[in-house]
Amino acid sequence: MQCSTMQQKLAGRREAKAAAQKACASVRVAGASARVPVSTVRQATSSVRAASRATSVKVQATATVEKATAPAGSLSSNGAGTRVMIIGGDGYCGWATALHLSARGYEVCIVDNLCRRQFDLQLGLDTLTPIATIHDRVRRWGEISGKHISLQIGDICDWEFLSQAFTSFKPNHVVHFGEQRSAPYSMIDRQKAVFTQHNNVIGTINVLFAIKELAPDCHLVKLGTMGEYGTPNIDIEEGYITINHNGRTDTLPYPKQGNSFYHLSKIHDSTNMLFTCKAWKIAATDLNQGVVYGVRTEETMADPLLLNRYDYDGIFGTALNRFVVQAAVGHPLTVYGKGGQTRGFLDIRDTVRCIQLAIDNPASKGEMRVYNQFTEQFSVNQLAEIVEREGKKLGLTVQVTNVPNPRVEAEEHYYNAKHTKLVELGLKPHLLADSMIDSLLEFAVQYKDRVRHELIKPAVDWRKTGVKVNTMGAAVAK
Amino acid sequence: MQCSTMQQKLAGRREAKAAAQKACASVRVAGASARVPVSTVRQATSSVRAASRATSVKVQATATVEKATAPAGSLSSNGAGTRVMIIGGDGYCGWATALHLSARGYEVCIVDNLCRRQFDLQLGLDTLTPIATIHDRVRRWGEISGKHISLQIGDICDWEFLSQAFTSFKPNHVVHFGEQRSAPYSMIDRQKAVFTQHNNVIGTINVLFAIKELAPDCHLVKLGTMGEYGTPNIDIEEGYITINHNGRTDTLPYPKQGNSFYHLSKIHDSTNMLFTCKAWKIAATDLNQGVVYGVRTEETMADPLLLNRYDYDGIFGTALNRFVVQAAVGHPLTVYGKGGQTRGFLDIRDTVRCIQLAIDNPASKGEMRVYNQFTEQFSVNQLAEIVEREGKKLGLTVQVTNVPNPRVEAEEHYYNAKHTKLVELGLKPHLLADSMIDSLLEFAVQYKDRVRHELIKPAVDWRKTGVKVNTMGAAVAK
Repeated sequence: MQCSTMQQKLAGRREAKAAAQKACASVRVAGASARVPVSTVRQATSSVRAASRATSVKVQATATVEKATAPAGSLSSNGAGTRVMIIGGDGYCGWATALHLSARGYEVCIVDNLCRRQFDLQLGLDTLTPIATIHDRVRRWGEISGKHISLQIGDICDWEFLSQAFTSFKPNHVVHFGEQRSAPYSMIDRQKAVFTQHNNVIGTINVLFAIKELAPDCHLVKLGTMGEYGTPNIDIEEGYITINHNGRTDTLPYPKQGNSFYHLSKIHDSTNMLFTCKAWKIAATDLNQGVVYGVRTEETMADPLLLNRYDYDGIFGTALNRFVVQAAVGHPLTVYGKGGQTRGFLDIRDTVRCIQLAIDNPASKGEMRVYNQFTEQFSVNQLAEIVEREGKKLGLTVQVTNVPNPRVEAEEHYYNAKHTKLVELGLKPHLLADSMIDSLLEFAVQYKDRVRHELIKPAVDWRKTGVKVNTMGAAVAK
Repeated sequence: MQCSTMQQKLAGRREAKAAAQKACASVRVAGASARVPVSTVRQATSSVRAASRATSVKVQATATVEKATAPAGSLSSNGAGTRVMIIGGDGYCGWATALHLSARGYEVCIVDNLCRRQFDLQLGLDTLTPIATIHDRVRRWGEISGKHISLQIGDICDWEFLSQAFTSFKPNHVVHFGEQRSAPYSMIDRQKAVFTQHNNVIGTINVLFAIKELAPDCHLVKLGTMGEYGTPNIDIEEGYITINHNGRTDTLPYPKQGNSFYHLSKIHDSTNMLFTCKAWKIAATDLNQGVVYGVRTEETMADPLLLNRYDYDGIFGTALNRFVVQAAVGHPLTVYGKGGQTRGFLDIRDTVRCIQLAIDNPASKGEMRVYNQFTEQFSVNQLAEIVEREGKKLGLTVQVTNVPNPRVEAEEHYYNAKHTKLVELGLKPHLLADSMIDSLLEFAVQYKDRVRHELIKPAVDWRKTGVKVNTMGAAVAK
């Protein structure tokens, strides 16, 4: 099926949906393709009419339209009347979440200062996938789904802006992705370390004040990171740990050890949030997310203008996404150090479901609930082995190379992190089966002409973070 | 002995000292009065020639010149050649520490942006004691001691300033008091919460970068607070705790729970520092200080122009100092809530000794050493009882009143915090014996005409911290 055909079908649904919108809040965009045989995976090619303004490149984009599956039965599909503000809604996780929720009837407002796009301009990076501007994204989504996403472009560190966004949208939930989210970026130089901590910590403080003063019943869903825990030699619990010590017992915040100014900023956020939940009776869910991989969600694949970003560079690219692109272009997979570093991972399709689960089952007032948001643990070496094996099946020549670790971290360590609470709420994980790697590799191969090899290698050394402003050096590996 | 006579004697020593300065780095300012009989406590009255510019008030100040005791035998008295930068050296603890170290031969540079004086202007507060400008303080200290303290007025959040301060002074140790240090101040309104976290966290990040890039062998002595620990139901250890969990063991950072944006900022500092010690091999001592009381140190009492500040207001006044002034002026002692809140306390004379101990016994490179810097635990009720009893002995009418607790905190709780490491290094504590309260009460009575009653009561309610800028309301209790 051509994308244009699918778009017509989707557009055709719009009028019918407009009438039935309230009654049928659970209508799914990709639901239109349910009439297509289930076993068939279709390739749709379309000219991307509005690639990112940052690159101004017009490219032939190949988008894989996936089978329209019903949301997992455990997920509420009725978001009608629920107002969700998504801060950072133009980013990788934020955009996918915004569409996921909008498709399910939630009233969505994206708040974003577009700094993620600015980082690409600043460092000369680019997403593997050609992405449309946020205005075109939202407009196109409206056209094919009949759903309106409102848009507020501005900086949450600017109180005047944030307070107006709150008073005009009146959110029931705020999903806060709006932070500088790259560990290497935070370690480029002093200015970017300071920017990261200021931006993330002050932005979150402002959100907490906005809830307290302007929307006291609003539930905060805040994205943290599994990296807040570091790599302790004991099991990692979900946010809190019961400690027996000298004959007494207490349940206390799990000890945190961050390994970059970025990870540290998320620890600070959690520490600040815990206090405001106690002092101001704010309801908050802190989602300590693992490393996200993949790019396809139902909604972002429904139209080339909705395509999500995919980062493979040494600064914003995370482990598995980076390996997949390296395999696609014949670059050796760059394992940092010994490769025994073990972390939690999840498919971006689970990110969006976890957010919905947190919204549908909100925290109580005064409670800071902490969930570890990942589905499987892998070491870097295990990931490299999987990509190597699956790449070879596709005829790719995949080599693995150990490069000096630019980070300061344990390369062989115990790691056992609990992650049962979201499953208890109904999460049905997409596991990293071989088929997932297959389709991710195929995706990367489709876009491999956009890969810029000089951006692949690690370019930020934790030991050399200096005080001189360093943009070119950070972006291009020596 | 008149102060002027003492000053002549001290000035007379200056020439002799100038010649013998290197050979006799341990010369103590107040050493001049060692010829006076030990048992005699003298009262010296002098006109303060340069009271704080903030108030421009000329007052008759009565300064008690204490017996010149030798530093405790365990303290090294030879600071010659050791260069100590004191950030926040114009503040309550910082000024006392600067003089203590300078008197013992350390080469001292005070770095301060004078924001503590600015807060008084902003909120209409004032110290009980008339204090001279920092320029007059340093000048006078040079006149009577022959010791030069260099002065850099500027903001450590301004990297250009801080880097120049580092490259010109070349510190061997940085003692970092330079933070907004009031919990109530941080809870006045959103702007001041944001200011507190930005100022404290970014300032400390800049200091860490300055050490890494400009003085890699410099030892950082950073002031934290016992308030970082909160009030857990288990014993509080010094910085780290060994946890046995599911059959495994690790020693991890002690879990932290701050109860104001100020306390939280200190937690963030500690978390950031731990990372930089690991990643950059910085040597750091984190001193989690208890509540400091008292005002007299040998050096600050040697001349009216050297007198330290003494805060009794509801925003900067800490528990015991506040109670003493309340007793002196016949104001009921304001116990917040039930008064079972228990904290660690120490005499300011121990603050300065602890800093010297940390400098004389520095941390190793890559180590973040944590000491709990207090000498005794008291509940608020216990403090009120002691002040009430001792006040009555002096003929004061002392009442105790329980006021609604403006803070959100446990009012009855377990509290047992370890504090042995500084004692092991040689600290000989000044305990809060009755005699200490006596002399502190007498001191407060001397200055009672300067007390402004409207500033005594708590004026900042943790539950009502808002987004409207609130200076007048914060300073004057309803």
